[in-house]
Amino acid sequence: MLKNRRFLLASRPTGKVVLENFKFVTEDLAAPKVGEVLVRNQYLSVDPTNRIWMTDADQYMPPIALGEVIRAGGIGVVLESNAPGFAKGDLVNGLLGWQDYALQPAQALQKLPTGLDVPVTAFLSVLGMTGCTAYFGLLDVVNPRAGETLVVSGAAGAVGSIVGQIGLIAGLRVIGIAGGPAKCRWLTEDLGFHGAIDYKSEDVEASLRRLCPSGIDVYFDNVGGPISDAVFSRMNNHGRVSLCGLISGYNSQEPLAAPRNYAQILMKRLNVRGFIILDYMGPRWGQAVQSMYGWVKAGKIKYAVDVEHGLENAPAVLNKLFDGSNTGKLLLQIS
Amino acid sequence: MLKNRRFLLASRPTGKVVLENFKFVTEDLAAPKVGEVLVRNQYLSVDPTNRIWMTDADQYMPPIALGEVIRAGGIGVVLESNAPGFAKGDLVNGLLGWQDYALQPAQALQKLPTGLDVPVTAFLSVLGMTGCTAYFGLLDVVNPRAGETLVVSGAAGAVGSIVGQIGLIAGLRVIGIAGGPAKCRWLTEDLGFHGAIDYKSEDVEASLRRLCPSGIDVYFDNVGGPISDAVFSRMNNHGRVSLCGLISGYNSQEPLAAPRNYAQILMKRLNVRGFIILDYMGPRWGQAVQSMYGWVKAGKIKYAVDVEHGLENAPAVLNKLFDGSNTGKLLLQIS
Repeated sequence: MLKNRRFLLASRPTGKVVLENFKFVTEDLAAPKVGEVLVRNQYLSVDPTNRIWMTDADQYMPPIALGEVIRAGGIGVVLESNAPGFAKGDLVNGLLGWQDYALQPAQALQKLPTGLDVPVTAFLSVLGMTGCTAYFGLLDVVNPRAGETLVVSGAAGAVGSIVGQIGLIAGLRVIGIAGGPAKCRWLTEDLGFHGAIDYKSEDVEASLRRLCPSGIDVYFDNVGGPISDAVFSRMNNHGRVSLCGLISGYNSQEPLAAPRNYAQILMKRLNVRGFIILDYMGPRWGQAVQSMYGWVKAGKIKYAVDVEHGLENAPAVLNKLFDGSNTGKLLLQIS
Repeated sequence: MLKNRRFLLASRPTGKVVLENFKFVTEDLAAPKVGEVLVRNQYLSVDPTNRIWMTDADQYMPPIALGEVIRAGGIGVVLESNAPGFAKGDLVNGLLGWQDYALQPAQALQKLPTGLDVPVTAFLSVLGMTGCTAYFGLLDVVNPRAGETLVVSGAAGAVGSIVGQIGLIAGLRVIGIAGGPAKCRWLTEDLGFHGAIDYKSEDVEASLRRLCPSGIDVYFDNVGGPISDAVFSRMNNHGRVSLCGLISGYNSQEPLAAPRNYAQILMKRLNVRGFIILDYMGPRWGQAVQSMYGWVKAGKIKYAVDVEHGLENAPAVLNKLFDGSNTGKLLLQIS
């Protein structure tokens, strides 16, 4: 009988996650029942939302219950199928969780698209949830027009780095905000951003004034907090904000009290729209993936993956998101 | 020569306004130059934005400079015209200011519509800026659909009381939040709101839970702060927020740190839109006034005016807005 190592939620974290928040157990794995599929997990997607799901704050899905496996997206290989449509060897993605194997109802899994000439990790980054988040969050949520100025926070992250490149394709002036000179160089020299601001060493508001001489029309926000305060202060009248994430607050026990200049939404007639990528899972998803694939093959979108190894390291790897030490999409390879 | 009593800004207020923030002067008044019109001010509109204009915070118009007359909308009678299109006796409105007389360039004045069977104060309330703020802020900014639930904060105020009634005309379930049992009774018994919450004596969140069993689809916000926190916590997914005012913060020196549950914009995919009524001054304005006039004459919209007297009382009257002691539109009659 297969042994399955699993991280269960033992207690809700109050800051960065610590080992005590988890019970790392080894359980026997049953064979798939009718309608179920057994998957050997290969790559886990490490996302800020893993941290959200561990809290019991109001959120867009139910929190992970105490004693449940840590919820996480991932890609794996079908080991055994007891459901039509899935066969041994199929590559699938789904909410596989922090565990070696996932036993899932078939309808909770999607087969990866075939015939696309990309490494499998692309389906957890540019051609997966991450890329679609960038695609819909920019093009659909705030509808940018050529010539406008776009600012992206968390710009060297998985989503932000793609948002900026889609912005370039759409003819926008693109300024990224990221932590550290290496990330900023990557944005401007490798990805072609018009400018990058290192929030760790620069006065963000002053740099925005310099790099966005016509103000900011569109803000794609991944972080919230003081960085967003600075951006809001430079928004143009009738500017639009795509609210994708608020990572600056996810490790905090306090509700996020941002932006401090919320009144700018009124004074500048801003339109702030939150969105959750799950709402876009439907007919338009495949079209987004096709567009992104075309841009990747044409060299218009580059993407970075930052691959860590070993299921046992999942908690430490999650914390990398919050100290800004990853560039591009953070993945955990576990087989 | 006419003597003109005027309130000039002497210092920027730090909380409620105090007399020391003003210089109350009497100046000689010159005759109108070519293109100018001399107006005897009759009614001044007392609005939260008067307080905003006195600060030098980022705002939608330039702040009042120190030494300038306090900016305020109003209605007056033309005393002498040196401009085509205006004649002695015409009723006009414009930014007349806290003073007995206003000497204005003709293009800064509008003649009141004639032929409408309403008292002149209607043009500073339901058929003026206030009514149009309610009209566009609800129907245009958040586009409500029959059957949805609307919550209005500052519901017994000049704008809020009209927003709720337009909501009723549009087939919404309308819940108002106001201060004190008298205002709440006015909302439900006289104006027909489906429910009213007295934020001074009730647990707003609990009352919202009771009165909005299907959650909140549309929020028309005049106040910000803790009341909005409670409303945000009960918003439905994909809800819309029309951000009209943030009166809870206007007397504060600190930037408004609200809503504490800003993250709900993300989790619930809310759309928060700030608006400023000045942006709607154009071809659609007359149409809005006609609609409102029709509803007033049909008895579908009732409006209250709260008329105080005496230019010298302007600072104290302004403070009434912030202690919630007015019901409906606050005006200051000065002649």
